[in-house]
Amino acid sequence: MSRKLRMGMVGGGRGAFIGAVHRMAAALDGEIELVCGAFSSNPEKSRLSGEDLYLDPDRVYGSYQEMIEKEKALPEDVRMDFVSIVTPNHVHFPPSKMALENGFHVVCDKPLCFDMEEAHALKKIVDESGLIFALTHNYTCYPLVKQAKAMVANGDLGKIRKIVVEYPQGWLSTNVEESEQKQASWRTDPARSGVAGSMGDIGTHAENLAEYISGLRIKEMCADLSTFVEGRRLDDDGSVLLRFDNGAKGILYASQISVGEENNLNIRIYGTKAGIEWGQQDPNYLTVRYQDKPMQVIRTGVGDLSEAAQAHTRLPAGHPEGYLEAFAGIYRNFAKHLQARLEGEEVNPVYDFPTVDDGVRGMQFIYKVVESGQSDEKWVSFD
Amino acid sequence: MSRKLRMGMVGGGRGAFIGAVHRMAAALDGEIELVCGAFSSNPEKSRLSGEDLYLDPDRVYGSYQEMIEKEKALPEDVRMDFVSIVTPNHVHFPPSKMALENGFHVVCDKPLCFDMEEAHALKKIVDESGLIFALTHNYTCYPLVKQAKAMVANGDLGKIRKIVVEYPQGWLSTNVEESEQKQASWRTDPARSGVAGSMGDIGTHAENLAEYISGLRIKEMCADLSTFVEGRRLDDDGSVLLRFDNGAKGILYASQISVGEENNLNIRIYGTKAGIEWGQQDPNYLTVRYQDKPMQVIRTGVGDLSEAAQAHTRLPAGHPEGYLEAFAGIYRNFAKHLQARLEGEEVNPVYDFPTVDDGVRGMQFIYKVVESGQSDEKWVSFD
Amino acid sequence: MSRKLRMGMVGGGRGAFIGAVHRMAAALDGEIELVCGAFSSNPEKSRLSGEDLYLDPDRVYGSYQEMIEKEKALPEDVRMDFVSIVTPNHVHFPPSKMALENGFHVVCDKPLCFDMEEAHALKKIVDESGLIFALTHNYTCYPLVKQAKAMVANGDLGKIRKIVVEYPQGWLSTNVEESEQKQASWRTDPARSGVAGSMGDIGTHAENLAEYISGLRIKEMCADLSTFVEGRRLDDDGSVLLRFDNGAKGILYASQISVGEENNLNIRIYGTKAGIEWGQQDPNYLTVRYQDKPMQVIRTGVGDLSEAAQAHTRLPAGHPEGYLEAFAGIYRNFAKHLQARLEGEEVNPVYDFPTVDDGVRGMQFIYKVVESGQSDEKWVSFD
Amino acid sequence: MSRKLRMGMVGGGRGAFIGAVHRMAAALDGEIELVCGAFSSNPEKSRLSGEDLYLDPDRVYGSYQEMIEKEKALPEDVRMDFVSIVTPNHVHFPPSKMALENGFHVVCDKPLCFDMEEAHALKKIVDESGLIFALTHNYTCYPLVKQAKAMVANGDLGKIRKIVVEYPQGWLSTNVEESEQKQASWRTDPARSGVAGSMGDIGTHAENLAEYISGLRIKEMCADLSTFVEGRRLDDDGSVLLRFDNGAKGILYASQISVGEENNLNIRIYGTKAGIEWGQQDPNYLTVRYQDKPMQVIRTGVGDLSEAAQAHTRLPAGHPEGYLEAFAGIYRNFAKHLQARLEGEEVNPVYDFPTVDDGVRGMQFIYKVVESGQSDEKWVSFD
Repeated sequence: MSRKLRMGMVGGGRGAFIGAVHRMAAALDGEIELVCGAFSSNPEKSRLSGEDLYLDPDRVYGSYQEMIEKEKALPEDVRMDFVSIVTPNHVHFPPSKMALENGFHVVCDKPLCFDMEEAHALKKIVDESGLIFALTHNYTCYPLVKQAKAMVANGDLGKIRKIVVEYPQGWLSTNVEESEQKQASWRTDPARSGVAGSMGDIGTHAENLAEYISGLRIKEMCADLSTFVEGRRLDDDGSVLLRFDNGAKGILYASQISVGEENNLNIRIYGTKAGIEWGQQDPNYLTVRYQDKPMQVIRTGVGDLSEAAQAHTRLPAGHPEGYLEAFAGIYRNFAKHLQARLEGEEVNPVYDFPTVDDGVRGMQFIYKVVESGQSDEKWVSFD
Repeated sequence: MSRKLRMGMVGGGRGAFIGAVHRMAAALDGEIELVCGAFSSNPEKSRLSGEDLYLDPDRVYGSYQEMIEKEKALPEDVRMDFVSIVTPNHVHFPPSKMALENGFHVVCDKPLCFDMEEAHALKKIVDESGLIFALTHNYTCYPLVKQAKAMVANGDLGKIRKIVVEYPQGWLSTNVEESEQKQASWRTDPARSGVAGSMGDIGTHAENLAEYISGLRIKEMCADLSTFVEGRRLDDDGSVLLRFDNGAKGILYASQISVGEENNLNIRIYGTKAGIEWGQQDPNYLTVRYQDKPMQVIRTGVGDLSEAAQAHTRLPAGHPEGYLEAFAGIYRNFAKHLQARLEGEEVNPVYDFPTVDDGVRGMQFIYKVVESGQSDEKWVSFD
Repeated sequence: MSRKLRMGMVGGGRGAFIGAVHRMAAALDGEIELVCGAFSSNPEKSRLSGEDLYLDPDRVYGSYQEMIEKEKALPEDVRMDFVSIVTPNHVHFPPSKMALENGFHVVCDKPLCFDMEEAHALKKIVDESGLIFALTHNYTCYPLVKQAKAMVANGDLGKIRKIVVEYPQGWLSTNVEESEQKQASWRTDPARSGVAGSMGDIGTHAENLAEYISGLRIKEMCADLSTFVEGRRLDDDGSVLLRFDNGAKGILYASQISVGEENNLNIRIYGTKAGIEWGQQDPNYLTVRYQDKPMQVIRTGVGDLSEAAQAHTRLPAGHPEGYLEAFAGIYRNFAKHLQARLEGEEVNPVYDFPTVDDGVRGMQFIYKVVESGQSDEKWVSFD
Repeated sequence: MSRKLRMGMVGGGRGAFIGAVHRMAAALDGEIELVCGAFSSNPEKSRLSGEDLYLDPDRVYGSYQEMIEKEKALPEDVRMDFVSIVTPNHVHFPPSKMALENGFHVVCDKPLCFDMEEAHALKKIVDESGLIFALTHNYTCYPLVKQAKAMVANGDLGKIRKIVVEYPQGWLSTNVEESEQKQASWRTDPARSGVAGSMGDIGTHAENLAEYISGLRIKEMCADLSTFVEGRRLDDDGSVLLRFDNGAKGILYASQISVGEENNLNIRIYGTKAGIEWGQQDPNYLTVRYQDKPMQVIRTGVGDLSEAAQAHTRLPAGHPEGYLEAFAGIYRNFAKHLQARLEGEEVNPVYDFPTVDDGVRGMQFIYKVVESGQSDEKWVSFD
């Protein structure tokens, strides 16, 4: 008989933004239970966070190492099934590695890890472990992103010619990292974030979304990266020309100094037959434009949408689903795969989620876009 | 030490829409755990639903009566704390009554109950029990509804002159109740829904929203109710003129035959200084218009919003929050009150929720709007 | 051989808003030339206005009486062909009557005249004269209003069930008529405006638009009219329930105290098959909603629109057409009819314009809505 | 005493799109009268076009040469004051040159001319003539473009960091030039259009708009131009990275194969203090975003806008002004300058219009963006 899956969390203590998101996302569909955590490298903070979450104090740990070791020692019907990793980038690889090597499946925040070396190593570990590894490129789990992908795959747009993907934010338009802003602090620190700032934090989401929906692969890039805020050590804005493997052209614009922009990830894809437009801030609208007839506005839950879109829609039309629901989709799909493994069943391919391969590709994007930004060569090959 | 609150559910078995909503809403914030349920009047269906939800089979009951009795017999640190009632209207009162009389707090879907007699009786029971009773007028728990209410209360709009509240849907524009559509079936059946159709199902939300934000009370109504679909026994559309206690005028339009409309609850309020507009389908926008300067578009999480709005915002700006998050707000606020009671603490008044008084008022609205619809008198008094 | 038509204007001197609109509208399509005018009851002001407009001083008159007499005395190939009347309501009838009785066609601003007596008299004069009389219900001349009308006529919406038409403005939300505001002054003065304020000024546009698009006729009304601004003598806000001749129900909301609203005439019509929505402030969008498939957003100039829509579109898609273009459509269509008469030709019926009959109906609306507002009877018959 | 200005037109015969636009634009404000024209290189077609326009047949000419010669010979109080040139690109320079050399002022469609040689020559001729030369970069004449420019100039945005300007269209997404499509035919023909396709036709508008509003100058460009439609000889899509003279970065995207896009010129500018967004298809909205307070949506005519915005607004708020009104602004401002010259007066600098210098800069953009598109160098200098 199936049961709720048991989750342990690494990171996400008091004051962390993304940890709470992961917990709400994991809880939403009733498939996952948080049973333990190492919420902070500060044991006292970890303990208080566990208390906030009504956890058994015995299962609130002072470090991920302790958590993995002690959980492994618990009876099989008690111990956690998987680890959710919600730490800054430089603490993605070590707990992922240790979890996988000790038989725990992993859900990890993006980007995959700190550098390419880790990325390749992690890919190897995942493959060898045979365990499930999900990366939370959460934006791909909106119902209408699924719909967009299905429409492209179905040929509704014809041959793709142009892709414009944007991810403007404004929250780093001043030197907030010098104040106590925790989110800003590690994201602008090369020692914790990696070689890229905005390109790693949000550029990867844009890259992932464009490739996910279009089914195309970026082949070459030409980047102009900037650091506008004085004293900042990583890029806070970038404009990138893209060339895709089918001959399509593209633009990627990711920025954290676009004042007043909130979290405006959006994409437009134009083919020979139709063009589509979707934006994360109004995620229940997908506009489809034609050259010779009225545009359509597809709405979540309205009409005969693709199986994948329906499988990611929880509510009737007109009941807006948002960021947490899309994020929860990653956990729900991960859970479906894990349940299926426990039960020896198959999973319908519409319940896909980003894997370590997407993660490696994201890391490659980060490295190559930074390389292009520093280069005088017009085009830098993606691979 | 505080703990997760334990919820038992009445109704919401397989195939029910609103039961799943309540469960997701209750789960989202990690304050509530579903521990038992009587999910259907059909015991086998209840059992299967419990299995879907990974519940202990011993706590999946064949009826709400059984659930209340057996849970009451469980040790205090095991038994449910409260009952969530998600049945059709005619099964709101009996389980509410029994739960309250046995010491369980209640969260109940709207409208409060089947008729005025039940409404007055329930009000009395709640008052005498001293227990917490929350009604899920979920739309009032959006961050920007809280903001709108705060702005009105703060005088930002000046004296209110005009309120236009609309709730158009289109899903009952054909005779879907004659097919197997379960949602449609009971909502159009006077024996289960009560004296009103659309006015009870969605008109009450509109009435509640208008009074909640404005702080005003409807004094008189002039209604034109219709049943457009042949064979239907209750109203499926209505237009109502409103007069408020401060002299403001209004319009309430609720309809389930407005083809193509999804769930388009929206409101505009005009005062002497400013006008505001909010719509449930795009709930993270609140437009504020002035006569002599540019309009403002307030966005969830942007700028210096009211304490109440902030207290109902889970994510940074640009991460859209939707229907489930607002619904979860009712449960979260209810849980805060219940936790506070267990801990002997006070609750900040920003964590309000709709009570039995709102429920009685909603029932009064239903009766009076139906009376007005049948009357040749121009104005019918609300009270 | 055809020639430009010659226009004389009554009213519209320096500082008048609507006179300049009529002149721009008349000029836009190159079919009409302003040749003379009596721009003000103040002869000096009329003279200066004529100078502004580069008119021959000999053809700038001190009164409409003088203009009509002197123009009539000019050679046929010089004298004006028609009179454009852009004065306040109480000065619509006298110049219309005199012009028609002296053989001049007329374009007149709405509402038709000051009271019902004048309305009936004017109808009789127009009919007996055999001349062309156009009323500038300009909003019906937008391309997508034509499209909406064609769709309803074609049965695309099925049987109409519900019509919601709104015309909120905010500019009279304070007592601007007590300052020097010329527009406000006469519109709030019963001696110049007639029995209604907002209902006459903008309510008639709403009534006309609803009937024009739907092809239905209002049968009964139930109105709640208000005067919110202290000291004002006419209504500045009204909410009206409507019943149409086919059994459809409706709401009409016209207001000049809806703070922050600019000129937001909009309409929604729901039938058994589809619902449409159009708003004057974004006139190049027409939304069509269906119950079971994605909504369509029809845009001016995109796709295979109705002949009438195409006949009122001057520019390729994406080149926004606005208020003046729609207003010019009335003049263009009037000119087509007048040219056709001069040439002895037929006019394609897509080039329609509001006539004296629409004007009489508008006056009837004004009287009946005011009657209903003052009545304790729930329903007042339109006719 | 002032008088209407007399215009002669070169090009714009039957079937031409832009000629009719120029005529409506010139007529709108009542300052200009069309008195003569050489509407086609086909004399019979020119004659018929003149008839359509109710012109004196004696002043409908078979060529621009004939027009300029014969008009020059007419009495000063009869002859045209200026020439409006609305021919394809390769016929901009010759009539401009001849008109200026014969004492006639010029309004010319964009781009300035066919190649750089002509551009420099024309600049010299204009300067030496002392006559007025206006180029119809019409998009800069929208009220809210004026407002945006004023806000930047006033420092409301702080220091500009990022500019994203887009001009997607879809009408050339198939090989329409091989059918009878007259507009497509010359625009895709290097012998008539020049070295660029989409970059010359619409890319120049984007470049001009970005520089006009921001007050900045493009310093370097990195372009990826494409020809997607088989058999086409000029670019039909381009993505360009921009670097501005103050250090700001930018993206310019112009395309005529973006299926379903109508005429979607739009721009976003982000400074250190605020970001603005404006789009040509909804030109009466200007969104202003801040990092720490609600966004503002400035609407044409609402609030205390800049003097320049007010000077380009013809109607009260809520009466949408569109493409023709903006286009008319160029003619109106040109007319103001010409009237002022005739009267020996000064013109308020808010009545600016694009000049030959803007035209030379546009030609430079065309040449350099094509050079960059063909180059392996990452950056090509603009000047």
